[in-house]
Amino acid sequence: MSYEVTSFIGGEFGDWNVEAFHICKGSPISEVRRLEISTAAPVSKRKVAWTLKGVESNLRYTTLREKELLQLRPSLLGKTNFTKAALIPIKKTEDWWLLAQDQRRNILEEQSRHISFGSKYLDVVSRKLFHSKDLGQAFDFITWFEFPPDGEDAFDLLVHTLRQSEEWKYVEREIDIRLSKELF
Amino acid sequence: MSYEVTSFIGGEFGDWNVEAFHICKGSPISEVRRLEISTAAPVSKRKVAWTLKGVESNLRYTTLREKELLQLRPSLLGKTNFTKAALIPIKKTEDWWLLAQDQRRNILEEQSRHISFGSKYLDVVSRKLFHSKDLGQAFDFITWFEFPPDGEDAFDLLVHTLRQSEEWKYVEREIDIRLSKELF
Repeated sequence: MSYEVTSFIGGEFGDWNVEAFHICKGSPISEVRRLEISTAAPVSKRKVAWTLKGVESNLRYTTLREKELLQLRPSLLGKTNFTKAALIPIKKTEDWWLLAQDQRRNILEEQSRHISFGSKYLDVVSRKLFHSKDLGQAFDFITWFEFPPDGEDAFDLLVHTLRQSEEWKYVEREIDIRLSKELF
Repeated sequence: MSYEVTSFIGGEFGDWNVEAFHICKGSPISEVRRLEISTAAPVSKRKVAWTLKGVESNLRYTTLREKELLQLRPSLLGKTNFTKAALIPIKKTEDWWLLAQDQRRNILEEQSRHISFGSKYLDVVSRKLFHSKDLGQAFDFITWFEFPPDGEDAFDLLVHTLRQSEEWKYVEREIDIRLSKELF
């Protein structure tokens, strides 16, 4: 778990082709054609529309029991047939962040089943969560998802269900960007 | 809770005079004479020995019940008779950060009484916690404490007790810097 900042760079370049761009809630960010994901310091002088940064970090809500269940089906990025992706940056409300730890856990899992419902999709949807809040970024988290072309319906059901949850009442800004990667 | 990075700047300048400097565990940082605390971007070209940065953030372990008890005795910095201070940066082990949320909570409070024992000292010791881990800093947290001159024995007992706890087995680096401020 060495420290590394991952940058999601929206613009005219990058391996991922933007297929759909949806402002779910709150202020927009500009639509872009392509997305580059980089853990290196920016060296290129290429014009970029926006850069969203995040870091992997420790678990915030997951219990040991849940962690052990999740580890049975590790979420791997870069599977060759997982050529579709989604980038979902989210900002939660001030009210959310002022809640105590047990209140946030209760809303996230006991009320919203974020961990247990999400884990049903692990075979068809890989994902990695990046934390941005302590970095002072515009969003609190960035989640990156990868899935096969025939997994997009399942992914839509996953995000649709979570968006109806109690937890999502504390989401004040959300963008949903769908992407695809060419097979070489 | 607007975003603000606080810098603890060790060197030859600043309002706080270093009285004692103790490397509790792990790699040292260089001893300095004075400490400056700043939320502004560094503009001065003054030579500094080190800068430790952190951000206030959401509660990580505190339950609603504990939060409500803590709010009965809010911890205020800058009390005029609280002319003594301690700066304690801490880094925890990789093992700690790989634990699930309920495991860390159990060690921190149920086994080590970090919150309940610490709260006994709220009238005599004010404190503020800054998070540094997601910023990629050398330490994971920085805690800043203020207390009156006759409160130093109580403060010593507080930190001595916590250092014997189960939680502290997961501390791999800790510095304890004691400071004083002149009254004007």
